[in-house]
Amino acid sequence: MGGRFTLGQLAEALQATLDGDPTVVVTGVAPLEAAGPEHVSFLTDPRYRAAAQASRAAAILVSHDVEDLGRVTLRCKAPRESLIDLLTLFHPPAMVPPGIDPRAVVAAEARVHPTASVGPFAVVGPGAVIGARARLHALVSVAPGAEIGADSVLYEHVVVRERVRVGRRVIVHPGAVIGADGFGFVADTGRPRKIPQVGGVLIEDDVEIGANTCIDRGTLGDTVIRAGVKLDNLVQIGHNVEVGENALMAAQVGISGSSRIGRGAVLGGQVGVGDHLTVGDGARVGAQSGVAQDVPPGEKQFGYPARPTIQALRIFHAEEQLPALLRRVRALERRVAELEAERGGEGEAGRGHD
Amino acid sequence: MGGRFTLGQLAEALQATLDGDPTVVVTGVAPLEAAGPEHVSFLTDPRYRAAAQASRAAAILVSHDVEDLGRVTLRCKAPRESLIDLLTLFHPPAMVPPGIDPRAVVAAEARVHPTASVGPFAVVGPGAVIGARARLHALVSVAPGAEIGADSVLYEHVVVRERVRVGRRVIVHPGAVIGADGFGFVADTGRPRKIPQVGGVLIEDDVEIGANTCIDRGTLGDTVIRAGVKLDNLVQIGHNVEVGENALMAAQVGISGSSRIGRGAVLGGQVGVGDHLTVGDGARVGAQSGVAQDVPPGEKQFGYPARPTIQALRIFHAEEQLPALLRRVRALERRVAELEAERGGEGEAGRGHD
Amino acid sequence: MGGRFTLGQLAEALQATLDGDPTVVVTGVAPLEAAGPEHVSFLTDPRYRAAAQASRAAAILVSHDVEDLGRVTLRCKAPRESLIDLLTLFHPPAMVPPGIDPRAVVAAEARVHPTASVGPFAVVGPGAVIGARARLHALVSVAPGAEIGADSVLYEHVVVRERVRVGRRVIVHPGAVIGADGFGFVADTGRPRKIPQVGGVLIEDDVEIGANTCIDRGTLGDTVIRAGVKLDNLVQIGHNVEVGENALMAAQVGISGSSRIGRGAVLGGQVGVGDHLTVGDGARVGAQSGVAQDVPPGEKQFGYPARPTIQALRIFHAEEQLPALLRRVRALERRVAELEAERGGEGEAGRGHD
Repeated sequence: MGGRFTLGQLAEALQATLDGDPTVVVTGVAPLEAAGPEHVSFLTDPRYRAAAQASRAAAILVSHDVEDLGRVTLRCKAPRESLIDLLTLFHPPAMVPPGIDPRAVVAAEARVHPTASVGPFAVVGPGAVIGARARLHALVSVAPGAEIGADSVLYEHVVVRERVRVGRRVIVHPGAVIGADGFGFVADTGRPRKIPQVGGVLIEDDVEIGANTCIDRGTLGDTVIRAGVKLDNLVQIGHNVEVGENALMAAQVGISGSSRIGRGAVLGGQVGVGDHLTVGDGARVGAQSGVAQDVPPGEKQFGYPARPTIQALRIFHAEEQLPALLRRVRALERRVAELEAERGGEGEAGRGHD
Repeated sequence: MGGRFTLGQLAEALQATLDGDPTVVVTGVAPLEAAGPEHVSFLTDPRYRAAAQASRAAAILVSHDVEDLGRVTLRCKAPRESLIDLLTLFHPPAMVPPGIDPRAVVAAEARVHPTASVGPFAVVGPGAVIGARARLHALVSVAPGAEIGADSVLYEHVVVRERVRVGRRVIVHPGAVIGADGFGFVADTGRPRKIPQVGGVLIEDDVEIGANTCIDRGTLGDTVIRAGVKLDNLVQIGHNVEVGENALMAAQVGISGSSRIGRGAVLGGQVGVGDHLTVGDGARVGAQSGVAQDVPPGEKQFGYPARPTIQALRIFHAEEQLPALLRRVRALERRVAELEAERGGEGEAGRGHD
Repeated sequence: MGGRFTLGQLAEALQATLDGDPTVVVTGVAPLEAAGPEHVSFLTDPRYRAAAQASRAAAILVSHDVEDLGRVTLRCKAPRESLIDLLTLFHPPAMVPPGIDPRAVVAAEARVHPTASVGPFAVVGPGAVIGARARLHALVSVAPGAEIGADSVLYEHVVVRERVRVGRRVIVHPGAVIGADGFGFVADTGRPRKIPQVGGVLIEDDVEIGANTCIDRGTLGDTVIRAGVKLDNLVQIGHNVEVGENALMAAQVGISGSSRIGRGAVLGGQVGVGDHLTVGDGARVGAQSGVAQDVPPGEKQFGYPARPTIQALRIFHAEEQLPALLRRVRALERRVAELEAERGGEGEAGRGHD
């Protein structure tokens, strides 16, 4: 790791205010409890104030408005953002020497930018384009005609198939598959017959795609992942889906064919979205929910089927009272039958109640 | 993509009736809204009739019985089936030259048909058999003794392990793993101890297996995927499962060990099926359902746990009234208590109601 | 597969008591129904007693305390444990010759034990350590500095990234990804910005990891999988999770960041666990459950959200009566209104009931 900085250097780099000795040297970042005097730590959640006061860290990164901790602090405007800068200082992205490993197979007709790197056993097909400073790790496959934008990283075993365009600064984690066939069959005459999947995939800039995640090609036209989208591991994106800018999906989410996920929408882990649905801009869907109809923009939903959060919570709460409710209704039925019986002998005795 | 056909040629190829100029040339297929005068489009769902009437396509593929659209049409018996033929005309399957890439590793004792193709960095073990015209893409691994039938395609990074037999015309998408060990342990004496998984996997003809899908080997005997089965991405098939002919499973479905899925059954995305269960022939299970007991043949179910659709819908509907129901029962209890109190002072005052 | 043993040899190897001819030769293990006179079979579940009595197997492995079956038996203390030994006798682990395949890429600065094996197209980075008798199959990638312990097996396409330590006797099935970045972003100022994921992964001894399963690295510090843990296929383990000794997770389970799964806990298929939660030692969570709060040690839960099993079962049962309950409450409301009306004209007529 190797990083060594004085607190003074960190204050300058982070545009933070230091209230301690600027010559103290730190060699890493650590959480509050794990930090020693060689570490800088951070307080980004006020619930951990006591831990910050007890921490052995040389200095603690905090927001300008945090009350005195009795510890050396680096005060800044947005400590969560500054934490990113701090981690990047200590862990700069690995420098990969440009060039094509002699054990890679790059088609003569492919265009690989001279500053790009292609690892051993990577395969780049004819007509593929690999942009400046792009990094293809070992064992990556980029199909004929596919395009990888500048500064993008494809980790080991990533598969990019034909008619896929990947933008700039995109990160694709190991094992992800971009551009496999969508799941489309006609079964009108018995046996399912495959509908050729002849569309493509468009991945815009600054997207991150998790390990073993799958993004299918469109049947006709493209499956589209807009700029800034972040997909966790083992996510499934069906054919002709469009995911709006900066949307986030946690692990194991599945989006069925032709659905649209709005800008900035956030889907919790294992959420499923049915086909041809729209999840509106900024909507938030809780983990494991099953979305069976459109979700309005900005709305929070969860449940199976997904419902507005307030309604879903009321139902979950009510469910817990359900066994008791059954007993209460049985008791009421007895009491009402008694009252009816007492009311007189007007032929009500045989009256049933379900 | 290079396809160019006159409408007359298309009419002949699709056995369709053309009611326009047979010399007009089209160069692709597009959806109704996206189509221009160089495209042929299609109307396979009557809901899109207005879009068909407004489409700029040179011609529209429709069923014989569709009323006049005021547009040039190609009329045929089964337009969804004909759409498959149409797409195949414009996007014929890529021709892959036969032969073994010099950077593949094929064991001397393997039998690779001279018309088969094996891509770079593919590994074929001793005793493996690769059938006529089969295509192993780059980075595929076929274990010793495994068999791949004629005309099957294994995309990049597919792993086929020992004692796996794959039939003819099978398509396996990137990253799928066929024949990993089933999940079986004995924990009778504390630590879980692995049960050797010594069975195999049988994949019959015309099966399609999605990207990153996993099909485990049997513990003893085979896991079996019958002819025509279509599995989407990220599906899990446990050891000793048998999936019946032409069954369909959407993405992220999980089938636990030793269960049987009937012929033509359809499982929606993220469905889970417990172990040692039977889902009957032709049954349909809705997305995200949790199957915890056998599903009768032909029955539609959904829910968690899965129940017959009509019952599940009634429960979902009733759930939404549950918070109000609680209030209604509380009101009833008050009203009944009042009636009881008014009835007289016969010692009923202290009577509780849960 | 070539194993041939007399029943006498098996009795000796399994420390079992044979009540038949010790010279009879068997060549394999088969389930009760499938077994022929050349097989040994087993009765580990008393429900299959009739099948054992009808089996054609040469001998049946049973517990000491099973009543006479009228068949030749091999009686032992723990037949499920002995079954493992029996299967291992007939299917001994494949011997892989040590050595580095000439088509592998092993960095000069890596340390590969002379008894280890590295398959074709495997990539081992500088500083990586591969222990005694470890087996890296074809197309495996081990990143710079990663460590693989003695006797561990990494199947095809496994990806091990930087700062990952894998213990001894660990089995990693094809396509698993260990050490991809955790899913962490700061979106305080609009666009999500990536939090560098600079921690590692620690996999202790005797762990088994399923095909295409993903275990993310810690943000800071390690994601930890303790000794004896068994993970099935397509499981997702988020950053900084700790999974306790001997815990079991069935396929497609997802554990969100920073949660702790207790020792010996058992999670059914497709279970989801939210972030920063604790599932206690020995807890059991049923398939597809959604864990949204801590689960006490030893407790059995299931449902969405997960609740103690008894409560969840009561709710599921009560749900089925819910549509009828709605009708019963409506009937009660009518009956009470009638009683109230009959009671007299004291201004109660207009009284509503929701």
